[in-house]
Amino acid sequence: MKNFDINEDPHRRYNPLINEWVLVSPHRSKRPWQGQNETVTLDDLPEYDPTCYLCPDNVRANGEVNPAYENAFVFENDFAALKQEEIAFEENKNDPSVSELAKQTFFKAKPERGISRVVCFSPKHNLTLPEMPVAAIENIIHTWQKEYTDLGNVDYINHVQIFENKGSVMGCSNPHPHGQIWAQSSLPTEVEKTQNNLKAYYDQHGSNLLQDYLKEELKLNERIVIENDHFVALVPFWAIWPYETIIISKRHLGKITDFTKDETTDFALTLKQLTTKYDNLFETSFPYSSGIHQSPTDGALHQEWQFHMHFYPPLLRSASVKKFMVGYEMMGESQRDITPEKSASVLIEQSDVHYKNKL
Amino acid sequence: MKNFDINEDPHRRYNPLINEWVLVSPHRSKRPWQGQNETVTLDDLPEYDPTCYLCPDNVRANGEVNPAYENAFVFENDFAALKQEEIAFEENKNDPSVSELAKQTFFKAKPERGISRVVCFSPKHNLTLPEMPVAAIENIIHTWQKEYTDLGNVDYINHVQIFENKGSVMGCSNPHPHGQIWAQSSLPTEVEKTQNNLKAYYDQHGSNLLQDYLKEELKLNERIVIENDHFVALVPFWAIWPYETIIISKRHLGKITDFTKDETTDFALTLKQLTTKYDNLFETSFPYSSGIHQSPTDGALHQEWQFHMHFYPPLLRSASVKKFMVGYEMMGESQRDITPEKSASVLIEQSDVHYKNKL
Ligand SMILES: O=P(O)(O)O[C@H]1O[C@H](CO)[C@@H](O)[C@H](O)[C@H]1O
Ligand SMILES: O=P(O)(O)O[C@H]1O[C@H](CO)[C@@H](O)[C@H](O)[C@H]1O
Repeated sequence: MKNFDINEDPHRRYNPLINEWVLVSPHRSKRPWQGQNETVTLDDLPEYDPTCYLCPDNVRANGEVNPAYENAFVFENDFAALKQEEIAFEENKNDPSVSELAKQTFFKAKPERGISRVVCFSPKHNLTLPEMPVAAIENIIHTWQKEYTDLGNVDYINHVQIFENKGSVMGCSNPHPHGQIWAQSSLPTEVEKTQNNLKAYYDQHGSNLLQDYLKEELKLNERIVIENDHFVALVPFWAIWPYETIIISKRHLGKITDFTKDETTDFALTLKQLTTKYDNLFETSFPYSSGIHQSPTDGALHQEWQFHMHFYPPLLRSASVKKFMVGYEMMGESQRDITPEKSASVLIEQSDVHYKNKL
Repeated sequence: MKNFDINEDPHRRYNPLINEWVLVSPHRSKRPWQGQNETVTLDDLPEYDPTCYLCPDNVRANGEVNPAYENAFVFENDFAALKQEEIAFEENKNDPSVSELAKQTFFKAKPERGISRVVCFSPKHNLTLPEMPVAAIENIIHTWQKEYTDLGNVDYINHVQIFENKGSVMGCSNPHPHGQIWAQSSLPTEVEKTQNNLKAYYDQHGSNLLQDYLKEELKLNERIVIENDHFVALVPFWAIWPYETIIISKRHLGKITDFTKDETTDFALTLKQLTTKYDNLFETSFPYSSGIHQSPTDGALHQEWQFHMHFYPPLLRSASVKKFMVGYEMMGESQRDITPEKSASVLIEQSDVHYKNKL
């Protein structure tokens, strides 16, 4: 019988952050692709687009005019998924046609209060993270810190989700560099799962799951893409997306407002380097959804938490061929072809100089 | 203070099948769309395509020739994600550089053995489910029954996942009507979650979660799309996709091989009607991923299980505008704009006559 070779044989890997598995099929990366091709983002966007609702001085959908902003600029989402209004709610309202059990189990719903904001990263319509100066990225980090604090201080807000959808393939309707923040009363499902697993680990070992994981990864040095004094970007052992990465601070810290000045600079550098490598991989403005997971703002201490940032990029083989998480993945579990180790080695090889700046 | 109105106010709903929540933002359905447009499937495909590797008599990628099949036709996937080969595996192999804890928690991997098959639904390149005669759909159901039995009988197979990816937007690389079956040793993540919740409910109430749920839905009659003697198709209270549905049998049955003759006919009818309504909604060949969840084939009794089929269609507003499950959804939780009740009412309105057959 053949011995198990993790680089060649189909296998499952376990994700301890969310207690789920991923199916890895290394041999399948040779499969020809006859499916859909994605639209490739154009490289020749103007610095200012008069029709863009995020550019300085332009008018937004609701009639408001953007200021002539020069750094990161934040405003309330004009089409927010959450509303600030307080809603009166009687749990299990008397509806005689529905049994108590059904109300508790099958028709469980609760109003959700929250605030959605948009964060423009730069006044320039065509300036994405990898092409920004480090100081401009530091400015974005300071904006995230301020928002995490301000939103977290709102009495009914217990969780602040900072994220970015980049590229039309990730549902982003405007190439102007921007991210979003959805702050709300409840812990969203994925955050709650993560918290449960961080908490169980902390209760059992008295240490942080991701800190302990990072130490092992640094020893093995197989999946590390970027390392500097304060941060590491790596392809997690349990990554589901072809070039998925996670950024973890070397020091145990629960939230973005715990950063020292040097940590802010190193985090900015990490973001710049990682997104540059991504762009260089297929010489395209690399689409992804990214997001920060950190301590909830519910006032509790949350020693189990560790600040980290996920990057979920969909591209698989080229600027136009992505991985589809569909039938098997939706009904069964996430599946990947290329191994995380191979992905890491491909990302390591990419230059830190953006392809547009090469001669 | 305004009273909670589930049709208007942002809220979260609970999915008892997988113990996760969905954020519902009814007011957001008015948001304008400026993002990506999907490729619309063409209506004028030929009945036979000489370049299609699924059409009868044609040659597949591996050189094999398809028979001149007349009904559903099954073959092993030429680019299978799973392999049948048995792999020798020593858990926690001695690697002195990695601690025991790390092996058990951070670098947990196991070989996975399985069989992947393709099921062509029809020899006709352009004949999708809604346009097939009921007898042809019954033939597909018999094929699924046979595969569930045959694959389930293989000693190392404990789970048989039957699914379909339809449309290029769902990663389907060939419009020839076909589905897939991935059978494997382990219970995939989503199935395990479902089983855990079905089991906990069964242990607590001595009955089946979905059977009890269905009874309440039939009483309320707010989300029922199709009902016949033996099956119901409805938009679940906790649906995440805009026009997501679930098909449940009225009788408690664990697996597709439990169907009576009449149940087979009614299931075929339900599939035909549901996919016809889907096609009529935007007058397009409606993309979706569908899949059957049913009892594992591990030999245990599994009284907690109930056969059901999920349909996850991505389209939101038109044949070319889909819902993106991206940043917030990946980091936080699934989010929807249109309410499940509204979706159900829109589907109910759709005719049972396919738009191509209307004069
Ligand atoms: O097997 P296919 O049709 O080539 O591939 C499609 O379905 C698979 C199972 O859901 C996915 O893993 C692939 O990403 C998708 O493109
Ligand atoms: O808010 P946007 O950019 O209009 O919308 C995008 O991001 C949201 C948050 O991930 C998603 O809910 C939408 O489906 C997506 O199109």
